[in-house]
Amino acid sequence: MLVCVVLLLVTLCTQGGNGEDAQTPGHVSVVIVGGTGDLAKKYLWQGFFQLYVNHVSSGNTFSFYGGGLTPADKAKPVFFEILKAVNCPKDVSQERCALLKEQFLRLSEYQQLKTIEEYQGLSKHIEQQLQQEGLTEAGRLFYLSVPAFAYADIAEKINSSCRPTSGAWLRVVLEKPFGHDFRSAQVLASQLGSSLKDEEMYRIDHYLGKQVVAKILPFRIENKKFLDPIWNKHHIERVEIVLKETLDVKGRIPFYDQYGVIRDVLQNHLTEVMTLLTMRLPMNLSSSEEVLQNKLRIFSSILPIGKNQAVIGQYQEYTTQVQQELNKTKDHISIIPTFAAVLAHIDEAQFEGVPILLISGKKLDERVGYARIVFKNDIFCLQNHNSVHCKPKQIVFYFGHGSLQYPAILVSKNLFKPVSKDSEWKEVTEHKDVSIQGLPISDYYVQIPTEQREAYSELISYIFAGRKDSFISTENLLASWGMWTPLLSSIASSFPRIYPGGADNGDLLNVRLIGKEISYNSEVVIINNDRMGGTSANAFQVMQGQFRGADMVSAWAEELVERLAADLQGAAEKAVLESGVFHLALSGGATPLALFHRLALHHFSFPWRDTHVWMVDERCVPVTEFESNFQNLHDHLLQHVRIPYHNIHPMPVQLNERLCVEEDGGRLLYEKEIRKLVNGSSFHFVLLGVGYDSHTASLFPGSKTDKHGESLVALTESPVKPHQRMSLTFSAINRAHEVALLVMGKGKHELITQLSRVKDNPEKWPVTGVKPSDGRLVWYLDYDALLG
Amino acid sequence: MLVCVVLLLVTLCTQGGNGEDAQTPGHVSVVIVGGTGDLAKKYLWQGFFQLYVNHVSSGNTFSFYGGGLTPADKAKPVFFEILKAVNCPKDVSQERCALLKEQFLRLSEYQQLKTIEEYQGLSKHIEQQLQQEGLTEAGRLFYLSVPAFAYADIAEKINSSCRPTSGAWLRVVLEKPFGHDFRSAQVLASQLGSSLKDEEMYRIDHYLGKQVVAKILPFRIENKKFLDPIWNKHHIERVEIVLKETLDVKGRIPFYDQYGVIRDVLQNHLTEVMTLLTMRLPMNLSSSEEVLQNKLRIFSSILPIGKNQAVIGQYQEYTTQVQQELNKTKDHISIIPTFAAVLAHIDEAQFEGVPILLISGKKLDERVGYARIVFKNDIFCLQNHNSVHCKPKQIVFYFGHGSLQYPAILVSKNLFKPVSKDSEWKEVTEHKDVSIQGLPISDYYVQIPTEQREAYSELISYIFAGRKDSFISTENLLASWGMWTPLLSSIASSFPRIYPGGADNGDLLNVRLIGKEISYNSEVVIINNDRMGGTSANAFQVMQGQFRGADMVSAWAEELVERLAADLQGAAEKAVLESGVFHLALSGGATPLALFHRLALHHFSFPWRDTHVWMVDERCVPVTEFESNFQNLHDHLLQHVRIPYHNIHPMPVQLNERLCVEEDGGRLLYEKEIRKLVNGSSFHFVLLGVGYDSHTASLFPGSKTDKHGESLVALTESPVKPHQRMSLTFSAINRAHEVALLVMGKGKHELITQLSRVKDNPEKWPVTGVKPSDGRLVWYLDYDALLG
Repeated sequence: MLVCVVLLLVTLCTQGGNGEDAQTPGHVSVVIVGGTGDLAKKYLWQGFFQLYVNHVSSGNTFSFYGGGLTPADKAKPVFFEILKAVNCPKDVSQERCALLKEQFLRLSEYQQLKTIEEYQGLSKHIEQQLQQEGLTEAGRLFYLSVPAFAYADIAEKINSSCRPTSGAWLRVVLEKPFGHDFRSAQVLASQLGSSLKDEEMYRIDHYLGKQVVAKILPFRIENKKFLDPIWNKHHIERVEIVLKETLDVKGRIPFYDQYGVIRDVLQNHLTEVMTLLTMRLPMNLSSSEEVLQNKLRIFSSILPIGKNQAVIGQYQEYTTQVQQELNKTKDHISIIPTFAAVLAHIDEAQFEGVPILLISGKKLDERVGYARIVFKNDIFCLQNHNSVHCKPKQIVFYFGHGSLQYPAILVSKNLFKPVSKDSEWKEVTEHKDVSIQGLPISDYYVQIPTEQREAYSELISYIFAGRKDSFISTENLLASWGMWTPLLSSIASSFPRIYPGGADNGDLLNVRLIGKEISYNSEVVIINNDRMGGTSANAFQVMQGQFRGADMVSAWAEELVERLAADLQGAAEKAVLESGVFHLALSGGATPLALFHRLALHHFSFPWRDTHVWMVDERCVPVTEFESNFQNLHDHLLQHVRIPYHNIHPMPVQLNERLCVEEDGGRLLYEKEIRKLVNGSSFHFVLLGVGYDSHTASLFPGSKTDKHGESLVALTESPVKPHQRMSLTFSAINRAHEVALLVMGKGKHELITQLSRVKDNPEKWPVTGVKPSDGRLVWYLDYDALLG
Repeated sequence: MLVCVVLLLVTLCTQGGNGEDAQTPGHVSVVIVGGTGDLAKKYLWQGFFQLYVNHVSSGNTFSFYGGGLTPADKAKPVFFEILKAVNCPKDVSQERCALLKEQFLRLSEYQQLKTIEEYQGLSKHIEQQLQQEGLTEAGRLFYLSVPAFAYADIAEKINSSCRPTSGAWLRVVLEKPFGHDFRSAQVLASQLGSSLKDEEMYRIDHYLGKQVVAKILPFRIENKKFLDPIWNKHHIERVEIVLKETLDVKGRIPFYDQYGVIRDVLQNHLTEVMTLLTMRLPMNLSSSEEVLQNKLRIFSSILPIGKNQAVIGQYQEYTTQVQQELNKTKDHISIIPTFAAVLAHIDEAQFEGVPILLISGKKLDERVGYARIVFKNDIFCLQNHNSVHCKPKQIVFYFGHGSLQYPAILVSKNLFKPVSKDSEWKEVTEHKDVSIQGLPISDYYVQIPTEQREAYSELISYIFAGRKDSFISTENLLASWGMWTPLLSSIASSFPRIYPGGADNGDLLNVRLIGKEISYNSEVVIINNDRMGGTSANAFQVMQGQFRGADMVSAWAEELVERLAADLQGAAEKAVLESGVFHLALSGGATPLALFHRLALHHFSFPWRDTHVWMVDERCVPVTEFESNFQNLHDHLLQHVRIPYHNIHPMPVQLNERLCVEEDGGRLLYEKEIRKLVNGSSFHFVLLGVGYDSHTASLFPGSKTDKHGESLVALTESPVKPHQRMSLTFSAINRAHEVALLVMGKGKHELITQLSRVKDNPEKWPVTGVKPSDGRLVWYLDYDALLG
């Protein structure tokens, strides 16, 4: 039996509804699958009751179904107990509240939902009701409050048997976890995608329902005129996105021990906050498509996050808890982190170099969540150091808890007075005497929500309003996993630092930023320290010796690259001092990437202004393609240093819209450029690698080495795709002052062993043709390549 | 009569003597011209006595002459009074001190030095003595302690009549001021250059004699391993070089009112400290040539300093003091600054974006001098906020005075413990309880000189040791004036902010850094505020209207550029949103420079990654030449933003090592590139200027406009050098979506007036040929151009 209400079309979304998908008048059926579970009990029914109260007199009718695996007779009493516990909003009179609750109970029923027949039954039941009451259907909302492994199956059942009558919408709400990494998220997404359209799926990140989080973009837009000049690398010192918890995960171990803090909190909540803080402002805030595109742009600009961008920890009791809850023996240890601090950087002009910290942990000293934007100190106080102008400047998006105990947006008074056009937010000027992030609260302008609302209630109203921008789209989800998966893989076997928990943690979890890397600040004794297969820089010394009659430097990969970078800078400085210019020829391929990163991030005094960069070889592909050696060099090195445009010399593989055609003369063009600019055509430094077949540059086995004669540049043929190449010749390489041969990785060990035995035979072993006539050759071999 | 001493060759310079010029054994004649003046009385004789004490038993003999314009009989009593006042070093016994002073007095005499005959007489006197005593001459040291206007004349007299016997050195010491600006310094240098060799001149900057300043480079070298990783933009937040004085300039007005604080202190002392802090470390610290070259490199990397990089002030009583000392009436005011804060930036990868503040003033709240390197906060303190690790990190080179009262180098304990290999410096661990730059002294490692020495004594010993690296070479001097002269010219008619002096200054002189600009932080009532001819951004509104039937925007220059930059970004964002790419064609010349700076410094969210930059026109000169439009664009815009290499499209004016030869096909090459990449060959935005002859792009009066037909690119002929040009044609320009015509400056007013009257006649008035067929044309005219 349905309560009939007056039909009225209202605009619900105060911050701009999503026009294309807004609610339509008519009947709405809400189904919570897992309707007697914890989440439903704690938040969902309350949220749907709130929705009912708000919409009972505004154009829609409702029926509510709790679904579950338990048979109806067993589940019903539990179900109605949960429903009876819901509360009315404060502004509803007791009398009316009693009436509303009574109505809500009458509109709700429990249905066992296990088999396909039961789903069909539910659908039939809905249709019969619609027909009996003569109602138009507006839509069906399925809220899957069940473990993620059940999603695909339920989605399929909904698709095959519960789709609403035509014209009405279907919305299926999903709770995290959405996969475990990029691959599993992709699998899940494609499974769901076979049953549901993207616009039918509402993936919840309950952080997006937090009032302060939902206010980030509107706040940025309302205060655009103040923020525009300072929302960039010149003004922001750093961004901290922090969620500290005091609780442990006791009782949730079976779930938690498969995920850990990064998957549980950083990949979703903190990442979403980061994108909201850093994304380009959409022209139209209510366009979920534009919001999504701008978010995706941020994901595509995040610098890779690897093990050097994260530290992890685990509270001391965790392992014992795991042993208990998973019935493991005393020698079982878990390395799932319960604390992580991650350093992200956005590789866009606006935020280049601004450290973004994402930090969360269990068993810390306080419960608090916030995003803090710390501004650089742009004031020089000549005399009056106590002036308000001399104090730190920051904006704090305070999600709740902590010393303040309520959500708020705080702006340092010496920054600007935020505007407040939004009736849902108000400025408060009287506070208890607390200090927030190092400043007394009286030093801030403080805005708080007019009415505090639960995240789930907010999100349920957004789902009803079809506001897709508050939910995680498939693209968004995959982009986020794309950002986190490499880190998760790289620390999969790392031991977290163990911390005692609470105040006892002391300095133990403080972190330090070093360039683009993060580490624990204190060098205390670490119970389990993962050395990652010996790549630690201090574990081994650099070894010097001879290889094939030339000089050899050997070390673990990281140290080897450091050494090569230092040698390269030494050569550059020497050349610039002597001749005012440094001519450097660089190889393509993956091996030099670590060197490029080292140069870009650590060698600030490298004389780039006087350096000319040449290519050792190039693949005959369009110059802007991913496969192009130049593009690789460009993305990993040239974009990050200040090198004059005309000092950059890509190989002209594309002329007359063709690739590497001899008649187009690209080879001769490059040769001419070298002869013109490089004294005696002798590069100061040539960096080479070696392939498994012992090719170097793009000089492959089987070609006559002397066939190029005195030519400096040749068109060559590779046995692997793309076959056509342009390459410096031995003649060019062997004129160089210094040649470095960089070889790394276990995969090259066999080759190196072979090379240590064979005679010079450039036709068979091209790399043996590298013999600088007046210059010096140095082999840089990592221990993996040298020792296997 | 000379005191004979044992001949011994010793190495004097503890920090590495300058081999090529070190002192030789033999007799040294010291002449202080202006030997009874203030400086000589206060510092110089004491310094030379110290030199005498140090060298009396180590291989040299001496005679000392005080020279002056006063006749000998009048000056002698004064002279000997001065000499009697000198003090022995602490470690010399009273008895020995008396003996040394007696000897020193006997070796010293006064000589009138006015006419050429008197200089000849002095020289003859020296030679006679040498002969009588049978001594070899080591050298002659002339210390010119006289006003700078007398330098050239005295140098000429020394050159013509006082040069020592062959084999002995001549050293002439000069005190600042060395000119008033670049031009006058150059004139003075060339005048002196006609009498003295560069290596004979010792220009004193007494700051280089301060022990802490002289220790900067050795400190950087000794602590290289700690500093190397942090001495760069990623770690340094800012550098402050500050000299605060409490005194006014009463009594020195006739000098001071011609110079002001920038010429008096910033151009020399603070600039030298800046170069020592930021220059690349020399491989050999004792090579004055290498030190000089590294210093010069810094000068060439300093971003231009103009009125937006400085604020100036004047203490309130200054004008009254000027009226009194210069006998002026009550309506005379002086705008010479007694306070200045200047913001410098070094345009090198290492320090890019690091603000360097140079600040000095009279009548401030305390007397203190220091250079402070503030490091970024690279620690995130999760819990234990009072830990030493959570405190600020800085290095302070404390020149003296202030709360510490002695020179010292202070390094935050959470930074590193400096090494101390130098016996002339020691670490101190017990201090009085003072706070230095916000930290209690106990939070620092503190190094102080073993023995405090006066700057002049130090410098006199350096002159004697021939250590040229502690003096200002001609190149160094001119480079420094080159840095300061544009600022001095641009503020020549600016009114300084008036400050009361002392503690009353309060917040008044606090400054704020906004991007690469500096301003006073407080917007208090300013007694005299220079509006710089109305360029203030808020003084006038932007005007919109019509010009020649097209849209027109007009404003004062600064606001006009702001508006154009905003419009350009708007167009870029729109294009990228619609088509994923923005094709922008830019003109050469001086007019767009302000726009380029605006874009580089304020438009961080400009979508450069998706922007292609094309040239409107180019001069047929080698691409890396100063005159090249591309080079201009490169230096002022492209080097400062992150734009992919292949999105940059210089015009191919140089092919086959020739410039703009039709047969080389450069014109067609560019046309082909446009057709290939730009949809419909329609640029999204074309920025044009107009020449006095109404040419636009490189399309000049007198050429048939239709002769290029459908060509997009043409070779054209300019009436001024360089004559040959490559240019987009009207056909290319008029296909654009938006064309902006930027015209600025009073010089263009007549042209604009004329253009407002004439009919379209592209042959006579080329700019009238700009008529986008489907696009929009907007004239951006500043008020100077529009209103005259």
